[in-house]
Amino acid sequence: MKEKKVKEKEEKEEKGSWVTYRPEIKIVDCSVRDGGLMNDHKFEDNFVKKVYDTCVSAGVDYMELGYKADKKIFSPAQYGKWKFCDETDIRKVIGENKTSLKLCAMADAERTNYHTDILPKSKSVLDCIRVATYISQIPTAIDMIKDAHDKGYETTLNLMAISVVQDRELGDALEALAKTPVGTIYIVDSFGALYSEQIRDLTLKYLKAIEGTGKQVGIHAHNNQQLAYANTIEAIVSGANRVDATINGIGRGAGNCALELIIGFLKNPKFQIRPVLERVQETFLPLRHQIEWGYSIPYMVTGQLNLHPRSAIKMRASDKPDDYVSFYDQMIEEE
Amino acid sequence: MKEKKVKEKEEKEEKGSWVTYRPEIKIVDCSVRDGGLMNDHKFEDNFVKKVYDTCVSAGVDYMELGYKADKKIFSPAQYGKWKFCDETDIRKVIGENKTSLKLCAMADAERTNYHTDILPKSKSVLDCIRVATYISQIPTAIDMIKDAHDKGYETTLNLMAISVVQDRELGDALEALAKTPVGTIYIVDSFGALYSEQIRDLTLKYLKAIEGTGKQVGIHAHNNQQLAYANTIEAIVSGANRVDATINGIGRGAGNCALELIIGFLKNPKFQIRPVLERVQETFLPLRHQIEWGYSIPYMVTGQLNLHPRSAIKMRASDKPDDYVSFYDQMIEEE
Repeated sequence: MKEKKVKEKEEKEEKGSWVTYRPEIKIVDCSVRDGGLMNDHKFEDNFVKKVYDTCVSAGVDYMELGYKADKKIFSPAQYGKWKFCDETDIRKVIGENKTSLKLCAMADAERTNYHTDILPKSKSVLDCIRVATYISQIPTAIDMIKDAHDKGYETTLNLMAISVVQDRELGDALEALAKTPVGTIYIVDSFGALYSEQIRDLTLKYLKAIEGTGKQVGIHAHNNQQLAYANTIEAIVSGANRVDATINGIGRGAGNCALELIIGFLKNPKFQIRPVLERVQETFLPLRHQIEWGYSIPYMVTGQLNLHPRSAIKMRASDKPDDYVSFYDQMIEEE
Repeated sequence: MKEKKVKEKEEKEEKGSWVTYRPEIKIVDCSVRDGGLMNDHKFEDNFVKKVYDTCVSAGVDYMELGYKADKKIFSPAQYGKWKFCDETDIRKVIGENKTSLKLCAMADAERTNYHTDILPKSKSVLDCIRVATYISQIPTAIDMIKDAHDKGYETTLNLMAISVVQDRELGDALEALAKTPVGTIYIVDSFGALYSEQIRDLTLKYLKAIEGTGKQVGIHAHNNQQLAYANTIEAIVSGANRVDATINGIGRGAGNCALELIIGFLKNPKFQIRPVLERVQETFLPLRHQIEWGYSIPYMVTGQLNLHPRSAIKMRASDKPDDYVSFYDQMIEEE
């Protein structure tokens, strides 16, 4: 049924008849969470409030504020408040959140004291817990999903670094995840390494694994090869209904799928691009003088080589941020 | 046969087995021609020579130098030499071109004195004439194709602004073009407005029109919506074999598909990325301080609205280059 619907939509789109939309498609703004990876989550309350107001005005469905990191592993002296998303800190900015925008926090497998730090839903303004996991941490992640679900939250499972996960392991993981109460299972292209055919293949594989469960497939793409937006569209056309984006593509390294681009693509009239453009102009453009994000050659190189961007991030922060050839030689050598 | 081959390749790619390549795929570097739109084609000889050397080292198949513009329409006092590509000016930089790199010039329909200004191939180091045309100029363009072919050149027909061409007109044009001696017919997304499904649909339509003629389909994409590279890949996967790119994506407005990205994608071992990275680092990065190109919000807006980028170019050159919201309001109003 779902596939038929997608196929029909695809056929319509190919004919240029862009007059329908899938109301099931929901946007998650990750500006504060993914952007926070660049400044140790030290965004000021005022900035978070502006992003929140923009999401509400733009008709975005979810906003992710940061992590629920374990303070025994990550020191609050070193990291900003959005690394921990304490309930009092959230409410200080957002109050009781009497809007239709749902709020999320990310919980990393093995780096979250989830039994204690994730409150029962009745005591939190958060609506959704997004469990981020590597393939090897799936058993822990599944326990975290159950915990959050039992506490009353919507949940997503964000399977990171998918471009280095082997097919058989992925099959096993999806089979296990399909039996959990998780609401959405995400394709996370952490290295920005995937091409559209691979995104399509993965989306269809995920969809098949969750068939009949009522779960959704999500996409979180990175822009190392200028494909974050293109791959997000590809996932949508293939049937993904949960879409991560960030204002002006903010995010670690090459950044993410830009919210303004994806809103331009989706035809649901509830989404408004103008508030996003205003936020880019007034807040994100000045921010670019303080922190760097977006496509550049070193991130392209790690993306093409299917490597974590950490070497590129280090190189961009060094005293030779534009020595592309030496960086390339070094990366090839390391391979 | 072609489609079967593409399908097989696609299937292989989906499985991650990137061990084969299509030797038919040829790259055209348009850095000097498309980049010249930003400085009235006033690049210095030294710059052109560097791009030429890079193309040779990188294994690029064709390099486009500029236009063969009519000097009665465009004054040589106002435009640089690469607007006209006089034989003596080309030879001054490139000599007899004793390399495997083929040289191209673009000839605009109705703006080229082609009978006179395009020399017989025996008197020119140029190898290929690329005729650029709007749909309404097709009869002139066909005469130009015949003229260049009779003079001994390879030819391409670059059908511009394809995102506003009606289906029936396109069908008629392709039918007429299939009967000409043109070697390659291009999809040119001048406005950077097309999504991948539309690129796929167009590529298949072009391929069908030229079936059995031995002609090729080409793709020239713009980056208004960060889709230049993604759409170029989509065209390749759908069967296009001629691919336009520019170093570091240089080009008018949002620019083009970056050569370094497409070389990273293609698996033909004759293509080398390292010389391109070196050129970006040493020449194009400093050039960015003099002329602006690449993705920015105004170009995104015109791309989303399927409009020529001229308003965005004007706005970026104004004293309020970052007033995105006013620009958006104005563009919506004009619609």
